[in-house]
Amino acid sequence: MNSKFVTLQLGIKKNKVDGLLIQLPLGSTSSMITTKNKFAASPVLVSRQNIKYGQIKHIFINSGNANACTGNKGDKNTKKILHTLSMRLSCRVDEILIMSTGIIGRQLPIDKILESLQTSDFNKYTDLKNAATAIMTTDKFPKYLSQTYKIGQKKITFRGICKGAGMIEPNMATMLSFIETNVELPKVLLRRYLKYCSDLSFNSISVDGDMSTNDTVVFTSTGSLNININNKSVEKKFLSYASDFFIKLASYIVKDGEGATKFIKMNVINTKSLTLAQEVSRKLSNSLLVKTAIFGEDPNWGRIIASLGSIDSHYINTTRVKLKINNILCFKNGMPIDNISRKLEKSMQKNTIEITIDLNNGRYKQSVYFSDLSYDYVRINSEYTT
Amino acid sequence: MNSKFVTLQLGIKKNKVDGLLIQLPLGSTSSMITTKNKFAASPVLVSRQNIKYGQIKHIFINSGNANACTGNKGDKNTKKILHTLSMRLSCRVDEILIMSTGIIGRQLPIDKILESLQTSDFNKYTDLKNAATAIMTTDKFPKYLSQTYKIGQKKITFRGICKGAGMIEPNMATMLSFIETNVELPKVLLRRYLKYCSDLSFNSISVDGDMSTNDTVVFTSTGSLNININNKSVEKKFLSYASDFFIKLASYIVKDGEGATKFIKMNVINTKSLTLAQEVSRKLSNSLLVKTAIFGEDPNWGRIIASLGSIDSHYINTTRVKLKINNILCFKNGMPIDNISRKLEKSMQKNTIEITIDLNNGRYKQSVYFSDLSYDYVRINSEYTT
Repeated sequence: MNSKFVTLQLGIKKNKVDGLLIQLPLGSTSSMITTKNKFAASPVLVSRQNIKYGQIKHIFINSGNANACTGNKGDKNTKKILHTLSMRLSCRVDEILIMSTGIIGRQLPIDKILESLQTSDFNKYTDLKNAATAIMTTDKFPKYLSQTYKIGQKKITFRGICKGAGMIEPNMATMLSFIETNVELPKVLLRRYLKYCSDLSFNSISVDGDMSTNDTVVFTSTGSLNININNKSVEKKFLSYASDFFIKLASYIVKDGEGATKFIKMNVINTKSLTLAQEVSRKLSNSLLVKTAIFGEDPNWGRIIASLGSIDSHYINTTRVKLKINNILCFKNGMPIDNISRKLEKSMQKNTIEITIDLNNGRYKQSVYFSDLSYDYVRINSEYTT
Repeated sequence: MNSKFVTLQLGIKKNKVDGLLIQLPLGSTSSMITTKNKFAASPVLVSRQNIKYGQIKHIFINSGNANACTGNKGDKNTKKILHTLSMRLSCRVDEILIMSTGIIGRQLPIDKILESLQTSDFNKYTDLKNAATAIMTTDKFPKYLSQTYKIGQKKITFRGICKGAGMIEPNMATMLSFIETNVELPKVLLRRYLKYCSDLSFNSISVDGDMSTNDTVVFTSTGSLNININNKSVEKKFLSYASDFFIKLASYIVKDGEGATKFIKMNVINTKSLTLAQEVSRKLSNSLLVKTAIFGEDPNWGRIIASLGSIDSHYINTTRVKLKINNILCFKNGMPIDNISRKLEKSMQKNTIEITIDLNNGRYKQSVYFSDLSYDYVRINSEYTT
């Protein structure tokens, strides 16, 4: 059994689908990761409570308005929505998760929303693609994925949707995702796996630390398939499939990165600690100069090295660092490699760029996925509310 | 007596002025602050040694090539330049400071440079404006300033030049500045004042932490005027004039910020610690979303609040924070202020934007100066080496 999706017209966006109701199969277990932003939106705060105490049966999402930085009135609106939903769905208020995405600092058009919730047909189900479309904001395409993997004879499935088209949060309370698997998982494992997979995927694309007020990932186990997850090798296989799925889905956000023309994978390897690998990857993938150079197909690798050097760590040794772009060695022993300019220049024209920074000083690593910075990024982000 | 400036054609940029020799008056004292970047360029490393042990008499600057990430060969080239200069100027090698600015990771055309240094006329002096022009890279205008202030009957003077047109380092080994005052100052005070003034000016514009490999500020006391600097009130006056001068000069870099259309002053006030004020100002002034919103004259203040909320500090209290843009209160008590949209939208059209973030939780503050992010920023930075 899969979750069922109902799209809604809540009246936030004029005459457009701007809402989604997800009805989880009976007996599902859900786990959730949310933004660490201090101004976490009202729906985030409420959902955190609900997932702690309730048995989640439904998820409600609206797009077009983040209900963030909206104070008491925003809280009241969140509660009104949940109250109306609980009446119509015959469930408790804390059995519903609520997410909002869109502009920050504006009140929801609550009367229109409640009216829509009271009259909408909750039995008109739609597919994954339409569900993904319903939660889009500046996204250029709906982001959804459904995949089947095999462990022995057992078919394990993952289905997921996400939204977010800004590489850089907070776009406008940016990233939401819902992923379900048919594998039966106790809540404690679900939580651990969600964290593991998110660190490799959604937390490795939202890399400028500018967390949005609404970022949320929900991972649901619908529980129809039992695998021997306590067996280490089964668990390892499951996690490799799950993280593969998470990374694929999260990559769509990068590919739809506002104004993106390139998909960049950056590997920071052989570092003294995981923290350092993460710091380097975060810093470099957010460097405007690195991002614009890649947009311009400019073989200006000096910007990567200079940005690396600005990190205050004893474990970055300038003569040990090696830099490769698309497998072309650019920098080693503190010196540029001769005669690579033409080859590198040509290679920069690819749509996918892989950068590997080898600190040659330890055994930790971190990969991040990001987009370049183009004219269109500026256009999209300078024109948003007006 | 002021310093004398000689512009040079070193052959780095074809048929263009690309070098500057500054001849300090006899008996001058100089202090220097340089980048903290681990890949600090060869000229930076050498100058650090020289200012420690030598009595600086001359400063040599080349533009067009940063001589950074150039390994042993780069070091040898730096030394060859100093050697040639010391012969021609009849001084010791360690009596010269050397700075380079331009592209990272390419070797200097050393033969051309040495030939030029051997044959150039070092007695053909020029003015401050031409001196500032000689060190430009992507700068759209030369940056120089000369001002006189009075302490009692005594006229104290400041003269300075700087270069740098990227708000965000490392543009290409970006920011250099030379400032002199006629006031006689012992080295220990000069050093302290340089740090004080730079923190308020050059260190408050280069705010993304992406320090360039070559950033350098030199402050020289030519020593012709004696004021009673040990008197607290005289010192205070001097420092207010000096910091005023530094901020004015540094502001030119922001105004020439690559693609800049707005000049933004951001005040972070009433914070628990200076460190927190600095962290907040750094974070917010580097937020792409804040910068693009200002370029688009978009009254989307939620981006500022969301970016603030992403900072991990117990001393940011969401209900205490107040936000003003051009003196219009936008956010208070965790809630948006009603009915300000139209007024704010109009105000965003100004060329100068002042943002004040009041954490209402302490007594520290920090101001930063930065530019917006426009199409032209992307154009300039995506086209640089190619």
